[in-house]
Parts: sequence; C-alpha cells; structure tokens
Amino acid sequence: MTTTIANRKLVEVCYTPGQYHLYQEQFEIVVVIDVLRATSAITTALHCGVKSIIPVATVDEALDYKSKGYIVGAERDGQIVEGFDFGNSPYAYMNPDFVGKTLVLTTTNGTQAINIAKENKTIVIGCLNNLEILCQWLSEQNKNVLILASGWKNKVNLEDTICGGAIADMLLETRKFRSDEDSTVAAKFIYRSAREHLWSFLRASSHRRRLIKLNIQRDVKYCLTLNTVPCIPILKNGELVRLDYSYAVNQNEVSV
Amino acid sequence: MTTTIANRKLVEVCYTPGQYHLYQEQFEIVVVIDVLRATSAITTALHCGVKSIIPVATVDEALDYKSKGYIVGAERDGQIVEGFDFGNSPYAYMNPDFVGKTLVLTTTNGTQAINIAKENKTIVIGCLNNLEILCQWLSEQNKNVLILASGWKNKVNLEDTICGGAIADMLLETRKFRSDEDSTVAAKFIYRSAREHLWSFLRASSHRRRLIKLNIQRDVKYCLTLNTVPCIPILKNGELVRLDYSYAVNQNEVSV
Repeated sequence: MTTTIANRKLVEVCYTPGQYHLYQEQFEIVVVIDVLRATSAITTALHCGVKSIIPVATVDEALDYKSKGYIVGAERDGQIVEGFDFGNSPYAYMNPDFVGKTLVLTTTNGTQAINIAKENKTIVIGCLNNLEILCQWLSEQNKNVLILASGWKNKVNLEDTICGGAIADMLLETRKFRSDEDSTVAAKFIYRSAREHLWSFLRASSHRRRLIKLNIQRDVKYCLTLNTVPCIPILKNGELVRLDYSYAVNQNEVSV
Repeated sequence: MTTTIANRKLVEVCYTPGQYHLYQEQFEIVVVIDVLRATSAITTALHCGVKSIIPVATVDEALDYKSKGYIVGAERDGQIVEGFDFGNSPYAYMNPDFVGKTLVLTTTNGTQAINIAKENKTIVIGCLNNLEILCQWLSEQNKNVLILASGWKNKVNLEDTICGGAIADMLLETRKFRSDEDSTVAAKFIYRSAREHLWSFLRASSHRRRLIKLNIQRDVKYCLTLNTVPCIPILKNGELVRLDYSYAVNQNEVSV
C-alpha cells in the first residue's frame, strides 16, 4: 500500500508566486491559475479563435509590444490600464477581430505567475471554466503537477485556492496522484466546503468585493461557472496557444 | 452599517513568517502560533511555574546561553538537538525543577516566528490549549490583531491554520472585529470544517504524519486539546512571561 502511494505522481497547490521557490523542484507541469480574471480570459480567448497570447509581466513590456503594432491588453488592480484597449475581462476576448491574431497581455497577478514559472517547465493555464478538460489531460500525463495560484499581490486569495483545491481533488480521486503538502489538503477542504455554493461562498472574498466595486458582476459570474470552455492553453516558445487535445466533451453550464 | 464595520478593529491570519512583511503594518498585537509544538509547550511551561522563556532563533544562540549556565531546549525537525536536554514536548516542561527558572528555547519554526515579529509589537503566544482565555483577552484590547502562524519551513500547515481560524472566528463573532483578507476567511472555513473532529481531520496533515513517525502521539493529542491551559504568554524585554490576567475560568477538557 505504502509503496503504491509512493509511486504515484505528486499534485500540490502553491498559494502565491512568492512561495513558488519553496515548491518548484520535482514538478514537471505547472498549472497557473488566476480565476478572477486573467486565466479565465486567456482560456476564453484561445477557445474563441485567438491564435496566441504573449504574457508579459510589466506594463512597459506591454507598451513596447503596442508600439510594434500588436494588439495589447493591460490590467492593474482590476482596471484597464490607461492607453490600452482592454484588460482581462473574458468578454473582451470574444471579439471576431481577434480571430487568428496574436495578442499581448499583462495583468496584476496572472501573467506574472506565468513568467515566474516559465523556465524549464510545461506551463498550462487553469480556471474554473476549463476544470474538467484540464484535469482529464493532467491525469493522462504521468507527471508531477504543481498548481500555482496567482493570489493577490502575493497573498492567498479564495477563488484561486478553491480552483486549485478542485484540480487537486479531482487528480487525487484518480488514485494516480498523491499529495504531501498541507497547502494542498487545506485547498481541497476549502473547495469541498465551497463547491455547492461558490457564488455565496465567494461573497466572503475580498477580491470579489473589490471587483464588485468595479461593477463587473457579469465577469465574476462568468469566471465562477464550471466547464464552459473546453480549451487548455499551453505555453510554447513564450506564447500561450491552444493545446491540441481531443476530449469527450461533457459540457455543463453550471450556474452558481 | 458600513461605517460601523469600518470602525471595527482588524483581525487577520498570516500563514507563514515569510509572508509577515505583507501584513505587518496596521497591527498592534501579534499572536504567534505553533500548535505542534512550540507555542503549546511555552504556554504549558509558564502555566506550570517556569518564570520566563527566552526565545532564540538559532541553535548557536541557544548554545551560547547554555555555556552561560542557562537551562536550554532546542528542537529541529521535530527532534531534540544533540547536546540539549529537551526540545518542544509540552510534557518536558511539567518539571518541578524548572519552577521559578528562566529557560531558553529554539525551535524549527515557532521561536523564529516570535523573533521576526518582535520589533515594536505586543507579542502574545497562542495555541489550542489557551484558545478561550486568549480570545477573551484579545477581545478586550481594542487593538488590531495579526495572527502569525509559524507554518512549516515557510509553507502553510494545517494545525496552525486551524488554530488561527479559530481565534479569528471567535474575535469576529464578538462583532468588535472585521477582516479584509482572504487568508482569514479561508482559515475560518478550515477551522469550521475541522472543529468537530480535529484529530481525524489532522490525519490529513503532513506535519502530523511527520510527528507520528517520531512516535510522539501523546504530545500531538495534548496539543490538539482545547482550553486546558488558562495562561497567556507575552513577550516583555525579550522574555516570554505569564500575562497577569484575571479570567473566569471555563476550563473544558475537550477530547479530540
């Protein structure tokens, strides 16, 4: 029994990019999460036909790309940065003009998490919108998986922890994975406490309160809806592209 | 209503010493927690008549005190450090020879958390053993309270998060406090999920598994028992001493 468990692959949840260095060894796949809203937006964009997205950490880099003629989005503290046309609202990416194009994006937390993790790892993008397809793909890889939550300015946030807990829970249920870290156990318990009533649970979240002030309830509801976007973004040569993965779609539009 | 909430004092939970710098402003009282086992041991020691405890961060500092004739305990990775007589087992401090004495202690996580927080703050010590008396005292201070979990080598651990969540939950229930951070909301939910069955819940904890390997089940059970030690250690001039606080004892020996 012990031997069997020891032979399983690891799945762990890291709550913030600032703690990534404590976890990074041993892991071959990193799943970056920023439920509200960067990774939900990126997943939506690629599903809606955007060819690729270049994630950049700073507004300066984003401006540089803009000056070269790229279509560039920039978000800080939940709002579109002045001088850019869009931020990280998923709805902004459902734009026929973007089909087949390469976009550039910088956000407060999500794109920075991608940049921290990108060296020598396979990076994929997770959110509640692509939960099931992502977990199915991960369960088939036979590799150690680290779920890196973007958090909020290096503090833990509730929605990313819940999403990370959901992924860990699903992978552990396959019995192909094991977990050694309390961060993973705690995330799993928070997800299980929350899953039947995500919307009311996240009322308690500071981040959601912050977003309500910004009047983007529609975005929040979109991002908290499970399994609506059967697409896995993966980082290839510095660009996020749609992973070619055939999947028996079981698309549930769960209202929360 | 909003004004009333805004006027309340803050209570927040920080999961690791490594994140303390993200939280430290605004807080006048810091509660340091290391349930397994440093803060449970310290609380027990002062309750059992130890005069004071000098917390030091490194084994070298501890050796230095030992060479000066102090009674010194040292623990690393759950075990007594070679050359010292005791570590952080609470039972080691129920020693008549220690009554009225000053001890020195260094531990893997707990004493380091105390040392990180000690500048310009009121530091008190929390654990499950002194939960109720501590919360009653905190609720009377009219000050912003930061609960600093020691974690395990700068990662979150389950038992400190649960204890932090319990303190936050009790203070928030008084309606004298508010919380803005998701770390606090999450800790509170984990505590509420766990409180009826702490022992079985913590089976899932990596730290507890580590301690079971060390064969200290009796210590773990002691540390997970609520409200057995009506004592609040407070840091004064670099030494932890018993806070003089009269309290209507409602001592419940809750078995877990």
